[in-house]
Amino acid sequence: MVIAEKALIAQIRRLARSTKNPAVVTGIGDDCAILRLTRGRGEEKDTLITTDFSLEGIHFRREWHSPESVGHRCLARGLSDIAAMGGDPVAAFLSLALPRDLTRSWVDRFARSLINLAERYGVTLAGGDTAESPNGILADIVVVGTAPKGKAVLRSRARPGDLIYVSGELGGSAAAVWNMQKGMRKKPNRRPNARDYTRHFFPEPRIELGHILRKKVLASAMIDSSDGLSTDLAHLCEESGVGAEIESNLIPRARIGKPAQDVDLQFALHGGEDYELLFTAQRAKRIPSRIAGIPITRIGRITRGTKILLTRPDGSRNELQPRGWDHFRK
Amino acid sequence: MVIAEKALIAQIRRLARSTKNPAVVTGIGDDCAILRLTRGRGEEKDTLITTDFSLEGIHFRREWHSPESVGHRCLARGLSDIAAMGGDPVAAFLSLALPRDLTRSWVDRFARSLINLAERYGVTLAGGDTAESPNGILADIVVVGTAPKGKAVLRSRARPGDLIYVSGELGGSAAAVWNMQKGMRKKPNRRPNARDYTRHFFPEPRIELGHILRKKVLASAMIDSSDGLSTDLAHLCEESGVGAEIESNLIPRARIGKPAQDVDLQFALHGGEDYELLFTAQRAKRIPSRIAGIPITRIGRITRGTKILLTRPDGSRNELQPRGWDHFRK
Repeated sequence: MVIAEKALIAQIRRLARSTKNPAVVTGIGDDCAILRLTRGRGEEKDTLITTDFSLEGIHFRREWHSPESVGHRCLARGLSDIAAMGGDPVAAFLSLALPRDLTRSWVDRFARSLINLAERYGVTLAGGDTAESPNGILADIVVVGTAPKGKAVLRSRARPGDLIYVSGELGGSAAAVWNMQKGMRKKPNRRPNARDYTRHFFPEPRIELGHILRKKVLASAMIDSSDGLSTDLAHLCEESGVGAEIESNLIPRARIGKPAQDVDLQFALHGGEDYELLFTAQRAKRIPSRIAGIPITRIGRITRGTKILLTRPDGSRNELQPRGWDHFRK
Repeated sequence: MVIAEKALIAQIRRLARSTKNPAVVTGIGDDCAILRLTRGRGEEKDTLITTDFSLEGIHFRREWHSPESVGHRCLARGLSDIAAMGGDPVAAFLSLALPRDLTRSWVDRFARSLINLAERYGVTLAGGDTAESPNGILADIVVVGTAPKGKAVLRSRARPGDLIYVSGELGGSAAAVWNMQKGMRKKPNRRPNARDYTRHFFPEPRIELGHILRKKVLASAMIDSSDGLSTDLAHLCEESGVGAEIESNLIPRARIGKPAQDVDLQFALHGGEDYELLFTAQRAKRIPSRIAGIPITRIGRITRGTKILLTRPDGSRNELQPRGWDHFRK
């Protein structure tokens, strides 16, 4: 352990003290954190655990993303996975490897932003690891949550005939990256304005929405849209052993830029990192057009078989291939 | 996600199927893993969580460590933290970022070795994340375990008068690294022989020992020796608000090499990565000289105050400063 690491641990520990989820019995400072996940209620609970990398050059670029954005997005990725199960987040664990030349100010701004988001959701930063990085900033976030026993919303319970819904709007994050790349080519030294692309730089995890969908037993299956609609819907269908039909003109496309305009359909179909919720519901369920303030849009239905078909306004129908999301590969 | 990642996930998922801890309800394949940590018993349990990096160039070197050693050590680090709480390991989560040029064989051997160790302790690989690495192999392991409610052995419960014990022997791992470095300078192409330094390349986490110490209420406080005795004892004392006196000639030094000889005291005092258990016990407790087949050695006692003193055979006494462990910094 180098001195910088010690300072970092002390700093994070100090910041982390501000949020204390009652389920965290022992946080940073022992070999393991101790969580008491059944505390207080009596209701039996399942434990939800998810881990997500945030690697410089892959998931973010230091010249585009402020330390605040990197810290926020790092935790938001994990919270979004908890939301996709309809869970309640409890604690986070941050493994952070830093290059020697990183300024203390960068780390401080990163940590404050991450902990600020944690506070808003009652999540305690309960542990992690630190190391010197051989190259670039490396973060891995673990988020732990709970759901009532047997009630977490899985990817694998979609059935033929279920309708497919998505929250918010899609493609905004990928289109923002595209715009930034274009902008950088023209003006290499211009840092993109985070306020123009809030959902990219500061995505809001859909915790409350996921919670309501689970609690009211509205969703039969659910996943978060982190890799792009075509990929995430393919995951859900594969796990459920079903196919799907979606209609291109129903997909809610993000509006970005000034003046704001709809993003291209390709971004909405394949662009990742929107952190919206993609879910299915039995046809008989009444799904409100807005839940917890977030618009909910029906985009298609689950079918027998395994193919995912996209219908266009002209009536043509093509198989939709999952196209992965490349993040910020240089 | 690149194709290599998909193949990796499929491969790990296949391998991971072999071990199924009954507490893991849903493993790889959903947004989160679902663990039911109170299942079957009725006894209320606490959840233990620990995370540990294994970074190429910091924690291992590809030219020294076989993929099997890297996979084993990666998980062993986390299991050792569970052991240090007296916990029972349940599930592991592996976040793995790989450089583009890494061979499939390397990943396969790494994963098989990690899962082989997991199997021996009934641990399910229940999730994780994969990414392309911008540079070198990056792994972060999360291990989840349980302990009966309120019974996990903390670092913070050592009291003045308690005796200090350590399992096994110390300094072997650091001395092995030192020998390898010397050897490499002489014969740069010679790969060290893992069999000569088993505790370095394939450390055995002290799960059973920790479990017994917790179950029989023998240990008042405990930590694993991952950063070196001087650093780990300082952590334990700091968390407990106490000091310590240890005797240099009581410290069990590892015997390594051919012919085997005691490692230098400096390695036993400051060398890390031994993954032994360092614990305290009230004076009245009878601590056997061997538990679960592992020798247990008394090395000193807990004192009032905050200093850690080292007594040498000539009667001289010095303050022992924690000296961090530098892993494999080049």
